[in-house]
Formats: sequence, C-alpha cells, structure tokens
Amino acid sequence: MMRRSLWLVPRFGSCKGLLGSPRLRPQSVLHRHPPRQVLGTSFSSSTDALVARFCPKTTDLKDYALPNASWSPDMMRLYEEFLEKTKDGEWIKLPSFKSNADHIRGLKVPGGLTTTSKEDGRLFTRFLEKEGQGYEYVIFFNPAKKKSVCLFQPGPYLEGAPGFAHGGALVALVDETFSKTAYLSGHGLFTINLNIKFKNLIPVGSVALLNVELEKIEDHKMFLSCIAQSPDQQVLFAKVSGVFLQLELEEEE
Amino acid sequence: MMRRSLWLVPRFGSCKGLLGSPRLRPQSVLHRHPPRQVLGTSFSSSTDALVARFCPKTTDLKDYALPNASWSPDMMRLYEEFLEKTKDGEWIKLPSFKSNADHIRGLKVPGGLTTTSKEDGRLFTRFLEKEGQGYEYVIFFNPAKKKSVCLFQPGPYLEGAPGFAHGGALVALVDETFSKTAYLSGHGLFTINLNIKFKNLIPVGSVALLNVELEKIEDHKMFLSCIAQSPDQQVLFAKVSGVFLQLELEEEE
Repeated sequence: MMRRSLWLVPRFGSCKGLLGSPRLRPQSVLHRHPPRQVLGTSFSSSTDALVARFCPKTTDLKDYALPNASWSPDMMRLYEEFLEKTKDGEWIKLPSFKSNADHIRGLKVPGGLTTTSKEDGRLFTRFLEKEGQGYEYVIFFNPAKKKSVCLFQPGPYLEGAPGFAHGGALVALVDETFSKTAYLSGHGLFTINLNIKFKNLIPVGSVALLNVELEKIEDHKMFLSCIAQSPDQQVLFAKVSGVFLQLELEEEE
Repeated sequence: MMRRSLWLVPRFGSCKGLLGSPRLRPQSVLHRHPPRQVLGTSFSSSTDALVARFCPKTTDLKDYALPNASWSPDMMRLYEEFLEKTKDGEWIKLPSFKSNADHIRGLKVPGGLTTTSKEDGRLFTRFLEKEGQGYEYVIFFNPAKKKSVCLFQPGPYLEGAPGFAHGGALVALVDETFSKTAYLSGHGLFTINLNIKFKNLIPVGSVALLNVELEKIEDHKMFLSCIAQSPDQQVLFAKVSGVFLQLELEEEE
C-alpha cells in the first residue's frame, strides 16, 4: 500500500492529494523574481537553519565531497578556487554522506513515508566506495543567491558511449545537485519533472561544471535550471530544467 | 580538440554540422506512423542485421542480463513470461555486456570519435559486479514493432530518498533502454533530449516495468516514449519522452 500513497503529482496536475494533502504545508507566497524573495515564512525553517542542520560542524560520518588522490589537477584547482570563496561565507561547501538518511537525521516526511535507509543503502551518486572510478563531485552552495556549482569528474564506471560519461550519469548528478539546492533553498523535496538537452559528450576523467540556479517558486513548485559545461566555458555539455515539489520535513518525536 | 568535435545538436537546432556533416548519412525517408515503415533503406544495415550483430550466438563475454540469486520472485516470474515470448521470435532477449564497446566491436563512429573503452570502463548501468546491490535489469526487444520492455529491480546502491530508487537511476536506465531500442530500430546513436515526469517513487528491491516505444522518425531524429510502472500497472512511476539522433556506425578497416 505504501507505493500507492506516494503520488507526487496527480494525473491532472493539481497539487491536491499530494502525499496525503492534510499533511502538506505548502509555500503560500508566490513570487517570480528574485529568488531570494520567494522564500516566505510559511515554512518553520529558514535556509540558514536548513544549511546549519545539513552541514554539521562535528560528525563521525565520512564526507565523500573531499579531495582524494583520483582528483585531476583541473578538479583540484577548481576545488581550491571555490573553497577560497567559502571564506567570507558567501559560498558553502556541502558535505556529502553515504545516504540521504544521514542528511536528514531526526526528520521525517509528513504522511508517514519512511526516511530510513536500508542497512546497505547508498545514495546513488555515491554508489562506489573506491575513489576515482565512479562519481567524483563536490557541491558548493550560495545561500543568498540560491544557486549551486557542482564540480564533476566522471570515472570509467559511468560510461555510456565508450570513453564518455553516460547521459544518464550526468542527469542523475544534475538531479542530485538540483535536489540539494532546492532543499536548502526552500524545502524542495521531490523531483516532479526534468528536461535535458544534451549538446556534447563529457570525456571520462575530464571535469564538468554544473551551474544550478533557482529560477522561481510558484504554487509550491521550485523551478531550477542547470548549465553543464567545461570549466573554460568553451564546451556546453547539457542544459537542464527541473521542477521540485516543496514539502517540509517534520521533526521526529 | 576532440571535445569540440562532439557537437550533437548545434545551438540553433539545425542538424547541419553534426559530427562533421560530410560524414553524416541520415535517414532520408520521413514518416510518422507506423514505426515499422519509417525504417527506410538509406542505411546499409537493417534491424535484422543490427540485431544479429548485437546478439552474438557465441561469445565469451559475460551477459549481465541473466537471472541471478538476487532476483526477486516477481522479477523471475516476469523474466520467464517474456522469455516464453521469445520462442516464436517476436521478442528477443538482449544480452548486456560490460561496456558498449563490446556491443559494437568492429564498428566505429564516423568522424573519428573513439569507440574504445578505457581498460576499466564499464557501462554506467552495469557499474557493479556484485549482484543485487546496483542495477538488475533485462531488456526484451520486439524488432517488428520497434518496442522494448525493460524489467528493472533497483538495488540499495541506487537510493535517492531513503528506501527508494533515485530519480536519476531511473532516468539513466530509461535512457539506456531508449538507446538500445533506438540503435536496433534504426541506428539511433546519441540522446539529444530527455523529458521525465516523475509520478511515484520506486521502492528499492521492487520491480518496475519500462515500456518503451519508437513513436516516429523525423529529420534523422527518433522519438521514443517510456511508461515506467509497477508490473500490475497500478502504480505509475514515470513518463519519459526522448529524442535520439540517427547515425550509422562504420565498419573498421
């Protein structure tokens, strides 16, 4: 029965009935621009509170978004560049734990949806413990501007066309970067829609930069965009738009 | 320089200049329905020839699309059902090797694009050797009707929301099923566009059925659709549309 309770978007596009509508606490304000203003007060947690919880100062959890020996000089250079930008607090380097359950400890989805990962559960984009062969990435988030940059170095296990990253591997990471940006910017919780235009293939081992922005919030939906390109901005890999549903997690009793 | 030669779709939507247009041998016929008729003769290999090459009768390559101990009774039942349908030749069970390079041995992409996988390269949707934790799936293809069914059992390493498959993991497998269907149906080689509407989450360990159809071919572009749902068709997981670019691989000298 659980599966049937998980309607994210009813067939006819209404938001009614989502995850048991009585428990839904939607964003009541509706603005177009700028993104900073769209985040109203109908949610009990601000972006600052969400970020503080998401980035614990002390934790025994492994952070997968830290440099390792597999990172190329390009990847390291960009990482250092963005790390520099975190010093004045404008940008934040997001930690990346093994499972989303680790990121939302003590919280639950309204409507009774489980937030417990299986014992061996892993976030898809962190599927591999071994460094360098799967996803290598780190997300930097700008809380004031509600935007993110993800540095992405695809390993050989992400192959589609021989020697190049699978389109699906890129989409999954864009979805993941959208997801973190939407959550921290205003309780965006579930992907409703993704639209991807592929332009160029990403060679395995190279670096791609995903520039993600929150465009607007309307009717409890957050609209995000992503431009994936080479660090020198000379090669466009893909353009993506996404829509996320806002839903506030509740404190567990 | 290689990256710059990989433009799949120029910025303004024209097909000119794709991968060095002089080498492009596009589909010259243009039909809408039915899909069977859209496959003209401008390509030197028919679907039958493509399928014969794709499904070698003898090979020393491991086929990852065979049942293993991690497959649930639901997955096994559906597999047996579709295997039964292969007996009269209407449906074909596609093999799934470690890399796409194994599927196109002896062929190359016109324009000099490599078809050589790195030594440790793996197809993204076969990233894990260990059974049951990553992707478990098998694709059945109907050559006459140009459609496919993919049986998908997501493992715990595909997690997004705790306990459920990541949206990106589903998209990647839909893209992969599109890719095989487009290739075998008419030399569809590169994903140009994907549009995904998510409806319900797929619980880790359950089975999803991806029904993929080739809708039409226009201007060297193949339009595909996918409905991902529970085996009993009671829960819709996602609807996806995709566009692929036709491009015939060439025999290596």
